[in-house]
Amino acid sequence: MKRNSKVSTAVIRRLPRYYRQLSELLEAGTVRISSSALGRTMGLTASQIRQDLFCFGEFGQQGYGYKVESLREEIGEILGLSRGHTVVVLGVGNLGRAIMENFRFSHNGFTLLAAFDVSERIVGTEVMGVPVYHADTLETYLAAHRVDVGVLTVPISEAQTMGDRLIEAGVPGIWNFTNYEITYDPARAVVESVHFLDSLLALCYMISQREDAARPENEAET
Amino acid sequence: MKRNSKVSTAVIRRLPRYYRQLSELLEAGTVRISSSALGRTMGLTASQIRQDLFCFGEFGQQGYGYKVESLREEIGEILGLSRGHTVVVLGVGNLGRAIMENFRFSHNGFTLLAAFDVSERIVGTEVMGVPVYHADTLETYLAAHRVDVGVLTVPISEAQTMGDRLIEAGVPGIWNFTNYEITYDPARAVVESVHFLDSLLALCYMISQREDAARPENEAET
Repeated sequence: MKRNSKVSTAVIRRLPRYYRQLSELLEAGTVRISSSALGRTMGLTASQIRQDLFCFGEFGQQGYGYKVESLREEIGEILGLSRGHTVVVLGVGNLGRAIMENFRFSHNGFTLLAAFDVSERIVGTEVMGVPVYHADTLETYLAAHRVDVGVLTVPISEAQTMGDRLIEAGVPGIWNFTNYEITYDPARAVVESVHFLDSLLALCYMISQREDAARPENEAET
Repeated sequence: MKRNSKVSTAVIRRLPRYYRQLSELLEAGTVRISSSALGRTMGLTASQIRQDLFCFGEFGQQGYGYKVESLREEIGEILGLSRGHTVVVLGVGNLGRAIMENFRFSHNGFTLLAAFDVSERIVGTEVMGVPVYHADTLETYLAAHRVDVGVLTVPISEAQTMGDRLIEAGVPGIWNFTNYEITYDPARAVVESVHFLDSLLALCYMISQREDAARPENEAET
């Protein structure tokens, strides 16, 4: 497959949305979709979709649209979902447990191997069939198992330390839910942070815009 | 304040990041920052930052940079954080509880009023001082209280129904964590969905790129 090595961050950020959208279309039984119909469901123009997918090679046929299943498979391939990436969770509090219980790791090509915590109540138990070990044994575990992603759901005070320990032990990817901006060497790892706040603030902005539009004195401001 | 009413979605999406970054700078004691320094911490160019902020009016002084505290305040104002938006949580499972316990609503200008669930174990209790009511009483509650944001942390099977009930009762903002794409009338509400999967897939892509770069046969592909 032809791949353009200079793909913009914006396109990379859209790839997961394509994958998710195509998965939903597939589950709904859609076999083929045009770039304009796919665009409508994603809030993008048909030409933007064609451009995005062109970065990764030739998909679809002029006038026939895209085959949902094979496009989904191709994008999954680009994303690296078939590589069997493995995951451990650090911190089995409410959030860690929510992610272990609700997030469909295996459905999306990931294997959740183990979780780590320090609480006596939880160490030695299993969550969804996944063993919870003591955090003291993290390095021993990582020396014996290839782990690609560490999910950071520890308290914010532990975020940097646990991130450092993962990277030091050679884990290349950190999925960071701690709301702490971890300092790290980009040559050694990638940190992807989930910022709940950004999402709520964007929602707040959109609600505020609606409020302003509903107020009659708005006329004067525009 | 001069505001441009046609602000692109990309700029809106960056505003929360500015706000978060400026909050961190403020906490670290930074008084003033240049657009290039702010850009470095955010992975943006100085000119992009100047353009973004220009959409909302004149900030900063040529050659003096931005005053961190007042810029943060201005952006908070644009985002609508001072409007005292109120929040209820629907679904006090692990995720709902994690959000109630860890997310600093009041620190960011929101008031968390109440939570709703159907479980006998939890209805009638408090989480972080916030009362948990039975979901059957949702409409009665919403008729008596102005609620701006409903946080959806119910099981995926309940997502559409609970979203509909919120919108029907006049709640303008839905913060959706259910991984379900809620169908709604954009004239009546705004739905902001947090897609954990998108973030993990982006991480997966970045790890896969690193793997490819580390393999010697990569030379042939570029």
